[in-house]
Amino acid sequence: MNYLMLSVGRRGELIKDFRASMEEGSKIIATDNSPYAPALYFADKHYLVPKIDAPEYIDTILSICRDEQINVVTTFIDPEIMLLAENRDKFEAVGVEVLAPYIETARLCFDKYELFKYLVQCGVRTAKTWGTYNEIKNALDAGEVSLPVFVKPRTGSGSVGARKINDIDSLRVAFEQDPGLIAQELMTGEGCFDLDADVYVDTITHKAVSIFSKRKISTTLGGANKTISFKDKVFFEFAQDALSHFKFNGPIDADFFYKDGKYYLSEINPRFGGAYLHAYGAGVDFIKMIEKNLHGEANDVVIGNYEEGIVMMMYDSVVIKKL
Amino acid sequence: MNYLMLSVGRRGELIKDFRASMEEGSKIIATDNSPYAPALYFADKHYLVPKIDAPEYIDTILSICRDEQINVVTTFIDPEIMLLAENRDKFEAVGVEVLAPYIETARLCFDKYELFKYLVQCGVRTAKTWGTYNEIKNALDAGEVSLPVFVKPRTGSGSVGARKINDIDSLRVAFEQDPGLIAQELMTGEGCFDLDADVYVDTITHKAVSIFSKRKISTTLGGANKTISFKDKVFFEFAQDALSHFKFNGPIDADFFYKDGKYYLSEINPRFGGAYLHAYGAGVDFIKMIEKNLHGEANDVVIGNYEEGIVMMMYDSVVIKKL
Repeated sequence: MNYLMLSVGRRGELIKDFRASMEEGSKIIATDNSPYAPALYFADKHYLVPKIDAPEYIDTILSICRDEQINVVTTFIDPEIMLLAENRDKFEAVGVEVLAPYIETARLCFDKYELFKYLVQCGVRTAKTWGTYNEIKNALDAGEVSLPVFVKPRTGSGSVGARKINDIDSLRVAFEQDPGLIAQELMTGEGCFDLDADVYVDTITHKAVSIFSKRKISTTLGGANKTISFKDKVFFEFAQDALSHFKFNGPIDADFFYKDGKYYLSEINPRFGGAYLHAYGAGVDFIKMIEKNLHGEANDVVIGNYEEGIVMMMYDSVVIKKL
Repeated sequence: MNYLMLSVGRRGELIKDFRASMEEGSKIIATDNSPYAPALYFADKHYLVPKIDAPEYIDTILSICRDEQINVVTTFIDPEIMLLAENRDKFEAVGVEVLAPYIETARLCFDKYELFKYLVQCGVRTAKTWGTYNEIKNALDAGEVSLPVFVKPRTGSGSVGARKINDIDSLRVAFEQDPGLIAQELMTGEGCFDLDADVYVDTITHKAVSIFSKRKISTTLGGANKTISFKDKVFFEFAQDALSHFKFNGPIDADFFYKDGKYYLSEINPRFGGAYLHAYGAGVDFIKMIEKNLHGEANDVVIGNYEEGIVMMMYDSVVIKKL
């Protein structure tokens, strides 16, 4: 199979892992806007392409698909997900499977407030969320939530701009300075933890067929990314139900909260997560599932077939190159 | 040769590079306080040790030196450098070479204001620096410097707490909140750039015998660490002279400014820098120099024997482990 990986950036280790489990005769083509994207140099071939908002971008990518006889395309960055979802037909017309969600789901994943409203409507537990200063002010006055609360950009990626707010004045100022914020009840403290799951959603059945869940290891070293695998039947059932309300297609990375004995869905990045490396290192292999799908076969549900207590520790590696 | 690398943390790639050029029969022993330090797992053997400020710490390390017949010790973290310098005699008593500066030099590297005063005294160009609010206020009033200026912690590591200050009120408040700050003239803008050098200071001649210099590649991707090697005879001469006023011993990582056609010394981390990977990837090999010194031979001066335009791009790799 011929893979096209878009906007590969620093994800060199992902490409190494993919290569290790690809069927014989496969190749990986990688793109990025910058020649300084180290992951480019782990691909069989790479292309430097325009920025994703350039008018000629999609045509450039489609032309690579034709030239390289690509079977499947995906992206490693959030801002490109909607673009793939919107252009699914064009890729399918040249025989390329798009590992990105369908448009409605892509839109929900991109807008945290729309996602909250949709989850409530579906009856999926999630953190209480408010979209304006007046809404959160009313909720505070009515005793539905108490300070501190969490604010974050409605459409942001990762944890950029996310912070705890302790008093009502700071909350008002925060919304004045950035009306694009949302406020959320705090899901931290005693009896709470964050968790993260790498999920493969079959492209034929559109069901979650593999879930790998892991928790952060608390450590005094700031920013160090260390996680440990865990399994809980209750979590797997919650995640399967929660994700069944969307139309994903392929790998996703979903964040959850655990609070007082219950799981909550937090956010969904509908693409390979950077920490898929952990899942792969613990024996979970999404590339094999992608290949099965590309051969026209649905995957069996194999949720939880990995070991608990496997630790992932991140460190810096380098590509050295004369450009 | 048997190497003891202390507080290895995330520096797994350094250990891989060391191993690739060590003479036959050598081994690397690594320590850290945390079992989640990924670099531990690239060593031939590792020890979990107390925190560096524990009263039994040095005895623990000395005991490892004896048990493992260690020839040479170094650390990958700044706070441990002074500890090694202060205990040099104890290590030498068990036959261990300490790759860390002598005490007076360690002290100067640790305190940016003392370093500034020393450099001025030695006639080495450096950024103008002030140690209190009154000093910088007087300098501003006298027209010796103008706003904005840069402030940073006098004894901090890396760029933690470093920031640009635009007005006199913010400057006063900054010093009120943290009297441990220093203020520095701005070395940014047109005609300015930062550069960084990996230097090997021979443990026999105490001269800089190898200098590898590199610049940051400016990029819109925040935090991404990308550097490019460069050579300049004028820089090498400046660096050799600047560093000759100190008593280093082994590898150091020094930061410089270039402004309006002249080089300035900024800061010195007297240990292997994380970006030694770039030097090694471009053909510079400090391990070979360490070995030569350990065999009782001085190294020839080989400054600049590497290629220009070699790019280093950092990416995340992982260690997966059942602990």
